Order: sequence, then structure tokens, then C-alpha cells
Amino acid sequence: MTTAGLVVIGDEILSGKVADANSPFLIAELRSLGVSLREIAVIPDALDEIADVVRRQADRYDHVFTSGGIGPTHDDVTMEGVARAFGTRVERHPELTAMVRAHYERRGLPVPERSLRLADIPVGATLLYSEQIVWPVVAMRNVYILPGIPEIFQRKFLAIRERFRSVPFHLRQVLVRDEESIIAPHLDAVAGGFPDVALGSYPRWTPAEDGHRVKLTLEGKEPARVEQAFQELVRLLGSDCIVRQE
Amino acid sequence: MTTAGLVVIGDEILSGKVADANSPFLIAELRSLGVSLREIAVIPDALDEIADVVRRQADRYDHVFTSGGIGPTHDDVTMEGVARAFGTRVERHPELTAMVRAHYERRGLPVPERSLRLADIPVGATLLYSEQIVWPVVAMRNVYILPGIPEIFQRKFLAIRERFRSVPFHLRQVLVRDEESIIAPHLDAVAGGFPDVALGSYPRWTPAEDGHRVKLTLEGKEPARVEQAFQELVRLLGSDCIVRQE
Repeated sequence: MTTAGLVVIGDEILSGKVADANSPFLIAELRSLGVSLREIAVIPDALDEIADVVRRQADRYDHVFTSGGIGPTHDDVTMEGVARAFGTRVERHPELTAMVRAHYERRGLPVPERSLRLADIPVGATLLYSEQIVWPVVAMRNVYILPGIPEIFQRKFLAIRERFRSVPFHLRQVLVRDEESIIAPHLDAVAGGFPDVALGSYPRWTPAEDGHRVKLTLEGKEPARVEQAFQELVRLLGSDCIVRQE
Repeated sequence: MTTAGLVVIGDEILSGKVADANSPFLIAELRSLGVSLREIAVIPDALDEIADVVRRQADRYDHVFTSGGIGPTHDDVTMEGVARAFGTRVERHPELTAMVRAHYERRGLPVPERSLRLADIPVGATLLYSEQIVWPVVAMRNVYILPGIPEIFQRKFLAIRERFRSVPFHLRQVLVRDEESIIAPHLDAVAGGFPDVALGSYPRWTPAEDGHRVKLTLEGKEPARVEQAFQELVRLLGSDCIVRQE
């Protein structure tokens, strides 16, 4: 199964100044691509922490995405952090330097020295171009470095999304009347019998209008196995307990 | 400065079945209490991962909150995970066992064997009672174990929130017209001169209606220092650049 991790870098998220819009977006995108997101880490704009988390996630997951901490100011240290995660440093990239200069020169403006920081990327990083984006995505091994501004994060991810497409997930759901303690032994049986099918159990605080108290989900990559688990679960629960199947 | 970490445990969040409502709630609560949230980890219902992340956060931060993975089903392994983080195991707590039994007996119902799992907590954990909640909050050292259902997460946190109150944050903001590359040297000067004041710089994708492109925030625990940094920043930026001060 293809796996992924997400590192959200931003004091502004942790301090509540800005809501994290990139996690919900990426969660939905990865799901629809058939990629299993295994971890989200929201951390400050701090070099050591970025390096630690990126190193750990890059070792564990097929793909890692970072959000934020890219730009010309003192707190933009994601590029250095990713470089450090791989035991290297940043260097000014000639192609990106030319792009930054051209951006200002087209408008007849002087090039601010600090904007050239946007051309500093980890040694060994690659640039991913696409027709949909002006600036390439910077990738270091399996780490894709994306900006924090949601409009740009989304645009850049969408420009490279097809390279992550995997086998889709197959999902079935059963909504049940009984509380979790009553049905738990049946869930154990199905979870034990179908280790390749993820069984989720999501209780509500109060029963829904249709009377269901718990939503059960079965999910996996093999439709036939999910269907088998679904049939077994439905059989064990019994029709009195089931409000709806989906 | 009082610090905190948050561990959100839930396959349902990572797979996009349920939106994470507890992080935004806790971010706002901790901020208003003057507690600095340093990390959010969203991880699966997996014993080893829970133990690893809880151990790491409990070592690093003053307070750690966990959300989710509490209940009677196969995927509820947070209690075991927290126990393992501290090198111990869970055991059935007599007081909680009596409460679970009473809950069913009051309604004249048999006690489902599996619901007694709700009384299994780490050896050495303490129970925090409050007038606002029926069930106590389980705390293991500096780790507060909260359920994932948002209504209960919120109710339980609010019942114990006053014990986390710290010195409040003091915040000033400046909205500026110029892009980050232009003002970056001024930001460096203020960030360098006031290491005890956090300076944030948040660019927009397109300029706002009032013309501002970047929001600058100054935040700290000492109002006088924040005000000094604010005056210095305003002086360096100059009135042409500033759209609004807050």
C-alpha cells in the first residue's frame, strides 16, 4: 500500500492565527488517489524540528509533503530543514535564480536581494515542472516541498497529483442501532478474520435521527475481500441491529 | 513559558471520514489560557505509534493532551499506548468499574462485558473529577487522555481547563503594503533585537481590499517588550508601507 506523511510547518497554525486548510485538502486528495495518509505533524518554524520530523517521515512513508515555511523572511526555514534532514545544505539554484530575476525585471522593478532566497533549495533537489504552474515544485528525494498559502499549496499539489495515483480504496458502511459495547465481539471477529480490511467504529454522542448510534466502516484495496468482510459483519450483527447499509 | 502538545489518534481523521474538530478547539483554548502549543500529531489507532509519540511529547512539553481511541472496541488502544509510553500497562480500576456497572444498572440493563474495558487505565493514572462532568478525566503524569467525540472532548477539557492557566500572550499586528522580500531586512532587525518576542510574517496570495499584502504579528508574554518591538517595527517600516496597526 502506498503511504504518505504530511508535515505542516507554521507557528501561525499552532497559535491559532490561521486555520490549517492544507491538511483537510490533502487528506481528501490522497484518499481519492488511493494513498494511505499515515501521519500529520504540525510543528513550528524551527530548523531542528523540521529536520527531525522530515527525516523520520521520509524513512517511513513513500511520499512526504511539507506545507509552509518557504519564502524570503527570517522564519522561512523549511528548505534548510529538509536539506538537514538529508544531511546536506541549501544552495542557490541557477534556474530558479533566473526565474526570480525575470519575475521582477518583467515588471521593470529592481530585484530585492532577499527574494533570491526563493532560489535556495537543498543540494540534490529536483524541480518538477507542469503546464499548470509557473514555478516548479521542489522535491528532495521523496519529500515534496509546498508553500503554506492554501491557494498555492493546492495549485502546486494538483499540478503533480497524478504521479501519486495508486490502487483505489473500496469502502462499505453499516449504520447500527446498538452501542459499541454490545457489538464489540462481532467487530473483533471481523477484524481478526480480515486483517487486510480496515474496520472502523465511530460512535455518536447522541443517536442520529434515523436511530443509528455507531457507524462501522470497512475499507481495503481488494473489493472482493471488503465485500466478504461486509457480508460477514452484516450476518453477525443481525437485521434488528442494522439501520442502514451503504 | 508553559508548553503543550496534542496527539490526535484516529484512522477516521487521516482517511477523511471525520473532520478533526478537536485540534481547532484546543488551539483556541490553549491560546486563551496563555499556553504555547508546540506540536500536533495526528496518528492512526496503532499501539506502538501512540506509545512513541506520547513518550516523546510527554518528555518535551509541560502538558500533553490525547484525543480519541478510548472505548470498548478493537481499535481503542489509547490507554494501552499511554501506559506503554510510561513503561507500564493498564489495569482495571475499581472506582471506574463501579461507575460502569452503575451506568447500566440504573437503566435496568445487563452490563456488557466489553464496556468494562472503559475501566482499564494505566497503572499510576489519576482520576480528575469536576462538577461539570459525570466521568472523570484520566491523567497519566502530564498526559490528559480525552475522548475523540468532539462534544465530550470539549466538555471534559472545559472541566479541567483552569489548571492550565498561565501568563497571557500579548499581541500586536501591523498590516503592510510591501511584499515580504522588501521588508525582510526590517523583520530580521526586529527578530534579532527582540528574541523574546515572536515575530510572524503572513503573506497573502493576492492583496486584500485595503491594499495589505502581509500581516506581521508580534507576540510575547511581556507587554512592555512587545510594545517596544512594535514601536521599532513601525519605525523601520515607515508610514508609507503601513496600511493599519492593531
